[in-house]
Amino acid sequence: MLTYELKKSPGVPLYEALYRCIRADILAGRLQPGQKLPSKRALAQNLKVSKITVEGAYGQLLAEGYIRAAEKVGFFVEDVPFTPAAAAPCPAAAPASPRQPLLDLSGSGTERFPFSVWSRLQREVMLDYGEKLLLPLPNQGIAPLRQAIADHLAAFRAMTVKADNILIGAGTDFLYNLLIQLLGRDKTYAVEDPGYGKIHKIYAAGGVRCISVPMDREGVLPEALHPAQVLHLSPAHHFPTGRVTSTGRRQQLISWANSSGGYIIEDDYDSEFRFDAHPQPAMQSLDSSGRVIYMNTFSRSLAPSIRISYMVLPDHLMTRFRENLGFYSCTVSSFEQYTLARFLSRGYFEKHINRMRKYYKMRRNQVLSALRRCSFADKLTIREEDAGLHFLLKVDTPLSDDALVRFCAEKGILVRPLSSYYHLPIPEEDRRCLVINYAGLNQQALEQVLAAWDDA
Amino acid sequence: MLTYELKKSPGVPLYEALYRCIRADILAGRLQPGQKLPSKRALAQNLKVSKITVEGAYGQLLAEGYIRAAEKVGFFVEDVPFTPAAAAPCPAAAPASPRQPLLDLSGSGTERFPFSVWSRLQREVMLDYGEKLLLPLPNQGIAPLRQAIADHLAAFRAMTVKADNILIGAGTDFLYNLLIQLLGRDKTYAVEDPGYGKIHKIYAAGGVRCISVPMDREGVLPEALHPAQVLHLSPAHHFPTGRVTSTGRRQQLISWANSSGGYIIEDDYDSEFRFDAHPQPAMQSLDSSGRVIYMNTFSRSLAPSIRISYMVLPDHLMTRFRENLGFYSCTVSSFEQYTLARFLSRGYFEKHINRMRKYYKMRRNQVLSALRRCSFADKLTIREEDAGLHFLLKVDTPLSDDALVRFCAEKGILVRPLSSYYHLPIPEEDRRCLVINYAGLNQQALEQVLAAWDDA
Repeated sequence: MLTYELKKSPGVPLYEALYRCIRADILAGRLQPGQKLPSKRALAQNLKVSKITVEGAYGQLLAEGYIRAAEKVGFFVEDVPFTPAAAAPCPAAAPASPRQPLLDLSGSGTERFPFSVWSRLQREVMLDYGEKLLLPLPNQGIAPLRQAIADHLAAFRAMTVKADNILIGAGTDFLYNLLIQLLGRDKTYAVEDPGYGKIHKIYAAGGVRCISVPMDREGVLPEALHPAQVLHLSPAHHFPTGRVTSTGRRQQLISWANSSGGYIIEDDYDSEFRFDAHPQPAMQSLDSSGRVIYMNTFSRSLAPSIRISYMVLPDHLMTRFRENLGFYSCTVSSFEQYTLARFLSRGYFEKHINRMRKYYKMRRNQVLSALRRCSFADKLTIREEDAGLHFLLKVDTPLSDDALVRFCAEKGILVRPLSSYYHLPIPEEDRRCLVINYAGLNQQALEQVLAAWDDA
Repeated sequence: MLTYELKKSPGVPLYEALYRCIRADILAGRLQPGQKLPSKRALAQNLKVSKITVEGAYGQLLAEGYIRAAEKVGFFVEDVPFTPAAAAPCPAAAPASPRQPLLDLSGSGTERFPFSVWSRLQREVMLDYGEKLLLPLPNQGIAPLRQAIADHLAAFRAMTVKADNILIGAGTDFLYNLLIQLLGRDKTYAVEDPGYGKIHKIYAAGGVRCISVPMDREGVLPEALHPAQVLHLSPAHHFPTGRVTSTGRRQQLISWANSSGGYIIEDDYDSEFRFDAHPQPAMQSLDSSGRVIYMNTFSRSLAPSIRISYMVLPDHLMTRFRENLGFYSCTVSSFEQYTLARFLSRGYFEKHINRMRKYYKMRRNQVLSALRRCSFADKLTIREEDAGLHFLLKVDTPLSDDALVRFCAEKGILVRPLSSYYHLPIPEEDRRCLVINYAGLNQQALEQVLAAWDDA
C-alpha cells in the first residue's frame, strides 16, 4: 500500500500534495507502468485523509495522463507517463519538486516574448480607442485584426483571403468545437495517425465520430478516407513525424473533398517555423471550390498563454455561420484583439517570427551537435530534422519503447516515444523513436545530462 | 422590387452597404413584417451585383434577426425586427446611419470602465510576472484569479467556494458548451420561458434537447420539469421579467434535483445590480449534495468586450472535468487573468460595482421620472422595477405588440416587447409590455424623444 507523510503546507491543498507524491513515484519508476493503484477508499483509510482528497489526486493524475482508469476495476499507472507540457493542467501551481526531470524534451516552450512592445501597444490601444473598447464585440472578431491577419497571410503564405471570411476564437480547441456545430454532428471526422491525440479527444467530446487515417511518406492515404466527410490535417508540418504533405497528395486530397462534398481542415500550426526548405503554399490556395478551412493560432507563435486563434471559412460556410451560429459572442477580449492587430500591422510579428526562427535554429543545431558528440552517437539517427520545433530520434537499442522512456526518466529526461502518438498499429520502423521537442529546452541541462551519462 | 443605389465607399464592403439599406427600410417600416424579400438571384440582377453580395447582406440580416428564412420559399421580414445589441454581430463596423434609432432601449450598455486602473494593472502584471506569463495556462484558469473570485463570492454572495472548484472560460456561451460535454448530450435541458432566446439556441447548436418551462410569480414551475435532467435558470434576477425565485421555490427545485439526480445551472448574471432589496443567497449555498453549478460573468459587470466568465463546479463534476475534459486548454489569456485577479483582490471591482450601482440607480430614476412626467403617463405601468438593468413597461393600448414596436420605431425608439421572449403561448397580461433596458440609455435622447412625442 502507498504510504506518504502528507504535510499541510500553506497554499497547497492536500489532494495536490498527494498528487505530487504519486507523480514523483511514477516519474522515478517506483510505481511501474501497468501497476494497479490502491482503491480510493483503501488509500484514504491508509493515509487517514478523506476520499475526496484521493479523488482529487487521482483526478489530476488522470488528467495529466500519469494513470488510467479501467471501469469497475481501478486505476493503473500509464505506460506512457509523460504528457506534453502544453496539455498539462496547472503547471503553474506545481512548484519545482526535487524529482522534476532535469531535461524536459516532451513539451513545447516559448520564451523571448516581446514584453516591452506588447505592453506599449496595450497602453496605446487604451488611449486611442477608449470607450470603443467597451462596445459589444463583432462575433467574428474585430475588423482591424481580421484585416491584419489577411494581410499577414498574403505576405507570408501568399494566400488571398478576405478579412470578412476570418473568424477569431480563443484557441483552436474552441474553433474545432465551433466547426463541429458548423459542419454537422452527423459527419465523420478523419485525423492523421500518428497524431496529436488531443484532436481525437476533442472530436470525441464534441459527440462526433472520429477515425484515424494512416499515412505514408507523402501524407494521409486518400483511399482510407472513404468513411469520412471531414479531414483534419497539418499538411505543412505534421506532428509528430514532421512530414510535409506532397504536392501530388494535396491535389488528391482536394479532389477527394470536391468529389465527395467533403471538407478539409488545414491546421497550419507551426508553419512559421521552417528552416531549411521553402514552405509549400497552403492547401487553401489550391482550393477553388470552398472545400478547405484554413486554421492557425498565435498561441504557438507568440506564447501558449495568449489565446488567440483564427480560421478562414469559405464564403458559403461564413454565410452558414452567420445564419446558424451568429448568436455566439466572440471569445477574445477587445483589448487583446486590438493589441494583436497593431502587433501584426506594424511588422512586430514578422520581426518576432524571424528572431524566433533564428533562435530555434541555433538551439536545434546545439541539440543536434550535442547528440552527435555524445558517447553513444552511433546508436542515434535523426529523422525529419528540418521540421518545426521538434525532430525524431531513432535509437538503436534492444529496449522496448516503454523501457526506453523509463530508462530516460531514470536519467532525468522527460521524453515521449513516437509510438505513443499512434491509435493504429505501430509500424516497426516507428518504434524506438523519440520525439525531441527542443523549443523549451535548457541547453545547460542538456550538456549536464549527456555528461553525466558519459560518466556513468 | 427593392432598388438601391449602392455606392462604393472605402472600408465598407458592398454586401454591408446593401444590408444597411434593407435594415433601414425595415426599421423605418417601409418593409413590413411578414413581407417577402426578392430572391437572391432576382435582387442581384436588379441591383447589378453578384449573388454573393446579396447572400452576404441577407446573411447579416438573418443573423441579426431582421429577416427569417423559410426553406425553399424565401426570405421574410421578421415580426420582431429588433435584437438586443449584445447579440448583434459587427456593430462596431456599422457607423451611425441617418435612420439609426434615436433611443435604443433594446440592448445592454456598459460605460465608465476604469481605464486608468486597468491599464496600470496591466503594466504591473507585465513587470511583476514577466516570463511566467508565457507558461502554458492551467486549464481551469490561473490560481490567483480563482482565489480572488472565491474571496469575492465569500464577501458579496456569502458563498463558501474553493478556488479549486472554479473554472474560468471565455464567456458563458463557451461554458454552456463545456457543460453539455460535462453533463452529457443524452440529457434534456430546461430553460425558463420567457427567457433570453440565445440560451435555447446554444443548447440546440450543442446538439441537445432543450425544453421551455413556464413560470409563475415565484419562478419556474417544478411540475413542468419532469422531462428534464438539467435546469438552467437565473434565480436572482430573471431576464426579462426581473422576477426573483422565491425561497420556497428554490427549495423545491433543489429537492427536484436531489430526488431526480438532476443538475441546476444557476446563472447569476446581473446579480451585482440590485437596488432596493437585499439579494437572496445563491442557490449554490443551499445545495449540500453537489447538484448546483454556479455561473457568472465579468462581461456584464465590467464590459461586454471583456470575455471572462466562470463557473463553480461541485467536487464530483470537477473531478469528472479533469478526467474527461482535462485536455482542453484554458480560453482566457494569462495577461487578462492576472489583471482581473489584481482588479478583484485590490478592491477595484467592489468600487466599480458600487459606483455603477449608484450610476444605474440614478439613470433608472431619470427614466422612470421622465416616463411619469410625459403626457401619456396614465397609459403606462412599471412592473418589477427593482431588478437589474431593465424594467417592464406595460402600455395601455389597443395596438398589438408588433404594431406597438413599429409605432415606437417610427418615433425613433428601438425596443423589444416581452412577448418576443416567449417560446410558449404568451399570457394576455404579458402582451403590450415593453422591456426597457436603460443601462446604455442616453438621457438627452430620452428627453428629446418624449418632448417630440408630446409636440406631435
